[in-house]
Amino acid sequence: MMQPAQIHCWDIFELALAGPETGNPFRDVRLVGRFQQGARVLEAEGFYDGGGVYRLRFMPDTPGEWRYVTSCNLPELDGVAGALTCLPARPGVHGPVRVADTYHFAYADGTRHFSIGTTCYAWTSQPEALQEQTLRSLADSPFNKIRMCVFPKDYTYNKNEPDDYAFERAANGEGFDFSRLNPVFFQRFERRVAQLGELGIEADVILFHPYDRWGFSRMTAETDERYLRYVIARLAAFRNVWWSLANEYDILKAKTMADWDRFFRILQTYDPYQHLRSIHNWQAQGTYDTRTFYDHGKPWVTHCSVQHGEVELAAQWRELYRKPVVIDECCYEGNLPNAWGNLSPEEMVRRFWETTVGGGYCGHGETYLDGQDVIWWAKGGVLKGKSPQRIAFLRRILEEIPQGWIDPQGRVTNNNQNSAGQRGRYYLTYFGCRQPGEATLNLPEGIYRADLIDTWEMNITPLQGTLRGSETIALPSRPYMALRVQSI
Amino acid sequence: MMQPAQIHCWDIFELALAGPETGNPFRDVRLVGRFQQGARVLEAEGFYDGGGVYRLRFMPDTPGEWRYVTSCNLPELDGVAGALTCLPARPGVHGPVRVADTYHFAYADGTRHFSIGTTCYAWTSQPEALQEQTLRSLADSPFNKIRMCVFPKDYTYNKNEPDDYAFERAANGEGFDFSRLNPVFFQRFERRVAQLGELGIEADVILFHPYDRWGFSRMTAETDERYLRYVIARLAAFRNVWWSLANEYDILKAKTMADWDRFFRILQTYDPYQHLRSIHNWQAQGTYDTRTFYDHGKPWVTHCSVQHGEVELAAQWRELYRKPVVIDECCYEGNLPNAWGNLSPEEMVRRFWETTVGGGYCGHGETYLDGQDVIWWAKGGVLKGKSPQRIAFLRRILEEIPQGWIDPQGRVTNNNQNSAGQRGRYYLTYFGCRQPGEATLNLPEGIYRADLIDTWEMNITPLQGTLRGSETIALPSRPYMALRVQSI
Repeated sequence: MMQPAQIHCWDIFELALAGPETGNPFRDVRLVGRFQQGARVLEAEGFYDGGGVYRLRFMPDTPGEWRYVTSCNLPELDGVAGALTCLPARPGVHGPVRVADTYHFAYADGTRHFSIGTTCYAWTSQPEALQEQTLRSLADSPFNKIRMCVFPKDYTYNKNEPDDYAFERAANGEGFDFSRLNPVFFQRFERRVAQLGELGIEADVILFHPYDRWGFSRMTAETDERYLRYVIARLAAFRNVWWSLANEYDILKAKTMADWDRFFRILQTYDPYQHLRSIHNWQAQGTYDTRTFYDHGKPWVTHCSVQHGEVELAAQWRELYRKPVVIDECCYEGNLPNAWGNLSPEEMVRRFWETTVGGGYCGHGETYLDGQDVIWWAKGGVLKGKSPQRIAFLRRILEEIPQGWIDPQGRVTNNNQNSAGQRGRYYLTYFGCRQPGEATLNLPEGIYRADLIDTWEMNITPLQGTLRGSETIALPSRPYMALRVQSI
Repeated sequence: MMQPAQIHCWDIFELALAGPETGNPFRDVRLVGRFQQGARVLEAEGFYDGGGVYRLRFMPDTPGEWRYVTSCNLPELDGVAGALTCLPARPGVHGPVRVADTYHFAYADGTRHFSIGTTCYAWTSQPEALQEQTLRSLADSPFNKIRMCVFPKDYTYNKNEPDDYAFERAANGEGFDFSRLNPVFFQRFERRVAQLGELGIEADVILFHPYDRWGFSRMTAETDERYLRYVIARLAAFRNVWWSLANEYDILKAKTMADWDRFFRILQTYDPYQHLRSIHNWQAQGTYDTRTFYDHGKPWVTHCSVQHGEVELAAQWRELYRKPVVIDECCYEGNLPNAWGNLSPEEMVRRFWETTVGGGYCGHGETYLDGQDVIWWAKGGVLKGKSPQRIAFLRRILEEIPQGWIDPQGRVTNNNQNSAGQRGRYYLTYFGCRQPGEATLNLPEGIYRADLIDTWEMNITPLQGTLRGSETIALPSRPYMALRVQSI
């Protein structure tokens, strides 16, 4: 037997096995790895990577020795056994993001994850140089999650053809052979996922979407499942993957609610790591009605992925579903004609703050008209807006919370404004387009200090002295202010 | 018989009759005037004005001769007959405001009334000098309607005692003799109504409200009716009166829905001129639910008087009630701690414009903290905010509409923004916190010209050339812009 491979926790162990190149391994070969540490067993499906190479990936989540053995309907890939040693995580690697404390997120090692997402739906379908530019932009941005589609996008400002596709082209050159995945496509795609991981950015992988001229939104049930299991087999071992079953699922008319339920169950069954799972809606926008949401109360949904402009409702959705609320789409900063793409930066930043004090997490997107037809929300490239630096400022404030997360605290001031915080310890109140000249705080027992935060100018001014009980403090009578109160 | 009195149309004819000073004329005397022109008869109740003087007021609405005769349970006031000649209206006098074209308002002579209201709830309960200052401020303002209470107000920033009250003080000095109205109070109050009339400002007279330490919100049914009929007898002849049955009626716990219905019927029965009638709600604020509105669909309600911050709903309420929608309270510009009183001026102006393109009419109020405790919304005084001049600019734009009013036109541009206008003639689109860089218009047959309006900077920039059919125009990618398109 070989010397056990050494792999750091939450990195990827990969077993490459040689096998037949003939036939249709995508359809006909089932390879499963059984990874065991003590009594604990994780099963991961393998995948055919082209050229006669079959791969099995595994992300160990606990240091120590893991043993594995394969099972396969091809004898030459069956019963391959071995071991690997999982070393402690590399510095900066915290594992996959999980739900924490009902409404929040943390990495597997317990490190808090304050989700600050952005959106570049089709960035991996662009020319290589543009993808590299997007990565550089992301590295300089505050964003720690990005929504990105597997399939290319056919939509306004999203018309260009990608270099390759998730499925092989049909032999006759017309359309696709949906029985064969395209390893070259996925090799490129997963390289981007890995690069995001090294930047500390979660890849919120959108598995289906309705902006489709190729047929990927109208595949058969069998193809859908093969596709999903292939994606899981390739990507689940990447610690920074989140599963987004769809963007605007309710526009995908070829799928029924039973299909979505089934897709969630496929993710539940085949993802050994139970990465975060959700699904993003279209029609609730502009109403106070959640009937067009997919029911986030279903047990396989880990968190709410919401499209809605009324971000003040985040706190209500938390109570309704008892899960984290991520408002992945609240419209985008930009100047498109379209209402979903022309928020002023002030309004974009306001929506981030309102979501935050509602106990939710907001997502960004940017849609400035571009002479080269490169819009961040579609293709990536460079960020042109004024909101990202303010969102970075908000992220800094969140990360400065001494411990834990912040939840709605009702009305800590007499301003009728909602506050988020931790009772007796920390309160963050946001005033938005309100401009109170004063506020009376009603604080539980304790001694506190306060900071006035200008969320637009991005400065923090400590207030003189300490606070206790009921105290009235002066505020500057201008919009976009916040107040941070912390116990001493 | 005397020479007939001469009175201009929509001015007040007043008959003063001497009668007994003894007893309780408020309770025991019923004086009615029957005014007849041709086959048309209007009946108006008279009132006791103290000092043995009984008055009967009449506002003629048609030039020519009117004959009258009184009836009274006191023989000396019964059967007094006479005539008056109604002359054409004085310049600038257009008569009472009526509902026009289902969703709008016009004066009796057909002149359009674009309702641009403000709010000084207790201004007539303030010292004389302050009332005079309020009138001067109103004269320089864009406002053509003011919400004002008959009763004094006991509320935050509204604690001072007025000089007098609608009822006489009780003989023992404790509380009030609710069987006796106070003519001196009403003489002062109606003088203010008349002064507003001369300024072209409608007095939206609030008959009941819940902010009460005196007992005016908890009177008996008999007293309520006597009070209402006395107010009608004195004030209905003022052309600029609107009846607002209550402010925040649903806080007045001593009244039932049947009481409000009855009060509306009293107004219907005794107001010969059928001035506009509505009632203002509290609880719907912050919901999309109209169940806490008084049902504006009831036949005696002439228009919807709404408190709500989601002014974008105006168009829906129009459709629901098929009446004009006046959002009398959408929060106020100011810097109070209270959320209802600390809108930024930008947000106040935005709400006016959003209401306008929803086919409704918005109301203003101002609540800046004041060292002298004089806040416009409560007591009047001077206007300190930045919204009134922008509201004046909006009023100018409305008055420049060549004819008629503007109604929701759906989406005339590709921006998902609502427009108000007249099909094929006039379109006003407002972008609010949106900042599109372009818009594609889809115009019905015809040739049009367009103006770009900066609603905050208050300038109007004509676009070069003419438009027809589907045309894309450049917009400046900044918030608070509007687009006006008019047929040539």
